[in-house]
Amino acid sequence: MYFSKLLSAVALCSSASALYVPGDADVNVQNKDQTPTALPEEPLNGTAYRPIMHATPSQGWMNDPNGLWYDTKEEVYHVYYQYNPADTVWGVPLYWGHLTSKDLQSWEDHGVAIRPPRNDSGAFSGSAVVDTNNTSGFFNDSIDPAQRVVAIWTYNTPESETQWISYSLDGGYTFIDYANNPVLDLNSTQFRDPKVIWHEESQKWIMTVVLSHKYAIQIYSSDNLREWTLESEFKNHGLLGFQYECPGLAKIPVSKPANCEMQLKDVSYPVKNNTDYVWVMFLAINPGGPQGGNFNQYFIGDFDGKKFTPFSEQTRFLDHGKDFYAFQGFYNSQFKDSFLGIAWASNWQYSAYVPTNPWRSSMSLARKLTVRPYNPTPESVQLVLNSEPVFVPEDMEFNSNFSSWKDLKLTSGKEEVFEFGSTPLGAFEFNLTFTANDTGLSKHSLGDFSIYLEGAKDPDEYLRLGYSTQAADFFFDRGNSKVSFVRENPFFTNKMAINMEPWEILAPGVKVFKVRAIFDVDILELFFNEGTAASTNTYFLTEENHPASLKFKTSVDNVFTVNELSLRQLTF
Amino acid sequence: MYFSKLLSAVALCSSASALYVPGDADVNVQNKDQTPTALPEEPLNGTAYRPIMHATPSQGWMNDPNGLWYDTKEEVYHVYYQYNPADTVWGVPLYWGHLTSKDLQSWEDHGVAIRPPRNDSGAFSGSAVVDTNNTSGFFNDSIDPAQRVVAIWTYNTPESETQWISYSLDGGYTFIDYANNPVLDLNSTQFRDPKVIWHEESQKWIMTVVLSHKYAIQIYSSDNLREWTLESEFKNHGLLGFQYECPGLAKIPVSKPANCEMQLKDVSYPVKNNTDYVWVMFLAINPGGPQGGNFNQYFIGDFDGKKFTPFSEQTRFLDHGKDFYAFQGFYNSQFKDSFLGIAWASNWQYSAYVPTNPWRSSMSLARKLTVRPYNPTPESVQLVLNSEPVFVPEDMEFNSNFSSWKDLKLTSGKEEVFEFGSTPLGAFEFNLTFTANDTGLSKHSLGDFSIYLEGAKDPDEYLRLGYSTQAADFFFDRGNSKVSFVRENPFFTNKMAINMEPWEILAPGVKVFKVRAIFDVDILELFFNEGTAASTNTYFLTEENHPASLKFKTSVDNVFTVNELSLRQLTF
Repeated sequence: MYFSKLLSAVALCSSASALYVPGDADVNVQNKDQTPTALPEEPLNGTAYRPIMHATPSQGWMNDPNGLWYDTKEEVYHVYYQYNPADTVWGVPLYWGHLTSKDLQSWEDHGVAIRPPRNDSGAFSGSAVVDTNNTSGFFNDSIDPAQRVVAIWTYNTPESETQWISYSLDGGYTFIDYANNPVLDLNSTQFRDPKVIWHEESQKWIMTVVLSHKYAIQIYSSDNLREWTLESEFKNHGLLGFQYECPGLAKIPVSKPANCEMQLKDVSYPVKNNTDYVWVMFLAINPGGPQGGNFNQYFIGDFDGKKFTPFSEQTRFLDHGKDFYAFQGFYNSQFKDSFLGIAWASNWQYSAYVPTNPWRSSMSLARKLTVRPYNPTPESVQLVLNSEPVFVPEDMEFNSNFSSWKDLKLTSGKEEVFEFGSTPLGAFEFNLTFTANDTGLSKHSLGDFSIYLEGAKDPDEYLRLGYSTQAADFFFDRGNSKVSFVRENPFFTNKMAINMEPWEILAPGVKVFKVRAIFDVDILELFFNEGTAASTNTYFLTEENHPASLKFKTSVDNVFTVNELSLRQLTF
Repeated sequence: MYFSKLLSAVALCSSASALYVPGDADVNVQNKDQTPTALPEEPLNGTAYRPIMHATPSQGWMNDPNGLWYDTKEEVYHVYYQYNPADTVWGVPLYWGHLTSKDLQSWEDHGVAIRPPRNDSGAFSGSAVVDTNNTSGFFNDSIDPAQRVVAIWTYNTPESETQWISYSLDGGYTFIDYANNPVLDLNSTQFRDPKVIWHEESQKWIMTVVLSHKYAIQIYSSDNLREWTLESEFKNHGLLGFQYECPGLAKIPVSKPANCEMQLKDVSYPVKNNTDYVWVMFLAINPGGPQGGNFNQYFIGDFDGKKFTPFSEQTRFLDHGKDFYAFQGFYNSQFKDSFLGIAWASNWQYSAYVPTNPWRSSMSLARKLTVRPYNPTPESVQLVLNSEPVFVPEDMEFNSNFSSWKDLKLTSGKEEVFEFGSTPLGAFEFNLTFTANDTGLSKHSLGDFSIYLEGAKDPDEYLRLGYSTQAADFFFDRGNSKVSFVRENPFFTNKMAINMEPWEILAPGVKVFKVRAIFDVDILELFFNEGTAASTNTYFLTEENHPASLKFKTSVDNVFTVNELSLRQLTF
């Protein structure tokens, strides 16, 4: 048994006084000090790649989000994460790092929250619950019911993976390990990532946890978080990849798109009840994702307290980009009409080589999820998770200069340039509604509407995104960069695409699309048609070569109209 | 009703005397002449991009393979395909073109085989059967039972899609439409791609056909190919994409990997019988494939003559590359222990813009498929389709110069170059077995074994493929090219990856991998671990800048050993 101690808060974006300490993290790590020392990457600086809104550790390595919970008393979000403070690559001992935020865009770093007992081991991924009614017996009346936090995590050693629980008596800043850990031991080396929720209907705790190499999500129930009963397995579903990781079960509110009247009863397969929620099973795989590396999928169905039953046998993408993994939902949040969660915004294929310093990886923005009926074709109504990013203040003003560009017809001979109008800092957002009319367009024509974001200091570097009527896909190209990592790493795919069906069809061949794009220094989150689909991808132009404008180009005439564009720099 | 006429055979690789005919195919096509006239792409030549072994049309546009069958009497393979002879992009009227081959690497072009009745319509995708017992009544005794060919295809008009049948009295060169077409009409515009097989057990014809926008594969039965009874639907399975296309049901022999003793009974989910075959359902989607554009998936299960029941609810990749679509199996073949099929080797995202001339697109090589048990992890036995390319002669000699390179240890300071030893013509094959020992490798190291294929005329253009121990993925990068299409088309993804688990584990961390790579001018087919996985991708270096050597490089010492390399140019 061990006790974690409270680290004094460290401002996340402070300049880290990192020292280079030679040695291989896998072999030599003996770092028992809770003030981590990071190893900078060799020639590059990398410090300017830190996103403004996306959660990052002050220094060191970060992967999966863990133990997400919301303190309803203090109105604070707690984000723990897989943390190697001793290096900018993964390694043991692996800790739970700890960040907090009130607005989901500025983050306070509290260092290590949970540490593993041995230096060759890890406090691997897991979740947190608020044990309001003290079912665990860990709390007395001095602990506010809103802060009775229990973390459930995987203790990984070279010999085994078992499930441990730890509780906090100080509102989630330090944890005490339960004396009789582990609470689950199957004598397996591939048994991990417990996610626990409270199941109101059966008045039980429910844990999903994977037998990674058996492609099985096990579902356990418990009255007290200490003793667990196996209820069922959800096995060999979806894309298997090499292994299952980070499962999660969530009761998610049903919403309706603004422009339609579809109901659950209209869905093209039997849906259990026409109620105001459905159950969603999240599942991550790595490696073996369809675009290479890691991938997050989900299933929609019903959960009866023992067994998850999907409504249909589909494989769905939680996000279509390369940098979105290990999604986890928050226990509690301030949002009652949606489900809040966060993912790791990187890819195991290349996460150890990205040129950031003295840390590696960020989280995604927090996302509000709902399930909604939607018709990808006129003949089918499907259920889909709808994603909406959240950060505060959401009501930050958009640049009013852009109102004059409403209903702008694009022509092949003319570039339309929208300048930000102030010093570019790398964080900005645009919302775009455009119409494509491809009736009569030659099949020889690409029919693209391209948005170029050139670096202000060196326009030879640029991001390109856009839409092609012929491919019916939205695209993002992050390959036009002078950064050697971008050019040379064989897994940093340049051109990503996502099928985007129209938000609205005004007439045959006349289609309306909506895109929301949030850029944050080295990460782009795209949301299509008010969130029907999302795509998250990192990018690296030369440091501080931030774009200062959007440049709209098209190869065709009389096809594209910009109906509405709003743009703002995000400078909090 | 109409009659197709026999076209005199045209050698496929003859230099086409193409004339430029201005005009947009979608608007002006009135070409009723069966000698197609192709429209060359503007500035490029493109003629040298023609693959040597992969089937291409002499000129014009090609997409899905159709009506694949093998004439057991003449020992000839018939490959029909979606064909627009009037242009190098898709357009109506759309025909069935026709190619034949005896060796699956040299192809004879017979021009149009099936034409649609109207100029605004298409003879869309479908299949062919050999009606040996004349169940259809179309044949008399003068037609050899081995050549009683009936084509089942979709007649597409702006108003509807219906299923038609046509029969051939000359061994598949010309077809006569059945007088009472359509044989299936659901009053739908999205009902297509019938694939018919003979179901021995129930002594019936079985058709799979999609209601594309309903995400449904319908299964029909028939005694005579003319009257069809709906038996069941397989609906909302796998990745839906925007629409379902090109379904197929096949009884596929079970094989065992050479290095294992796994049986069907060892599989991690219930398999109906421990017999010598299982049933496979093929399904194509486009757009909305996981890597963008089109995608071919499959399901493994049982078929009782009425209903297909998958053994598990997994989504599987038939091929992991971007250029493999609309796979179809042959009716009959010379191979009794495997199932033979061919796919279209392009992607709708960019197929209309590739710089070939005066044709666009090729087929994949023919592949022999078997189903085999395999253990992606030590804790799971999965069923997987195993792919092996077929072309004759398979016993062409490998370059004997390479025997001396057996058991070559790679070091970071030294490139190993393997020259072909004769004028490069663009078609070559290598077989590689290598060992990776990543014990003790720093997490900071990419740990790559890269194979560079530089252009002989301009080494600044190159293909790169290889493996990284850290990502556990094989990669292929086709982006280092001066061809403007490669650089500028936003969908021509540069870096593809495929998760490749070891063929054999010799000791902890010491893993053996096998790769077979077949390059054919502008298309690369990769097969991993004797066919457990495949990846097909087109590529474009500057015309005739063919690679003349393999250059092996690694960034790490004491990790990679080349156990065996064989190499041959493919010059038939």
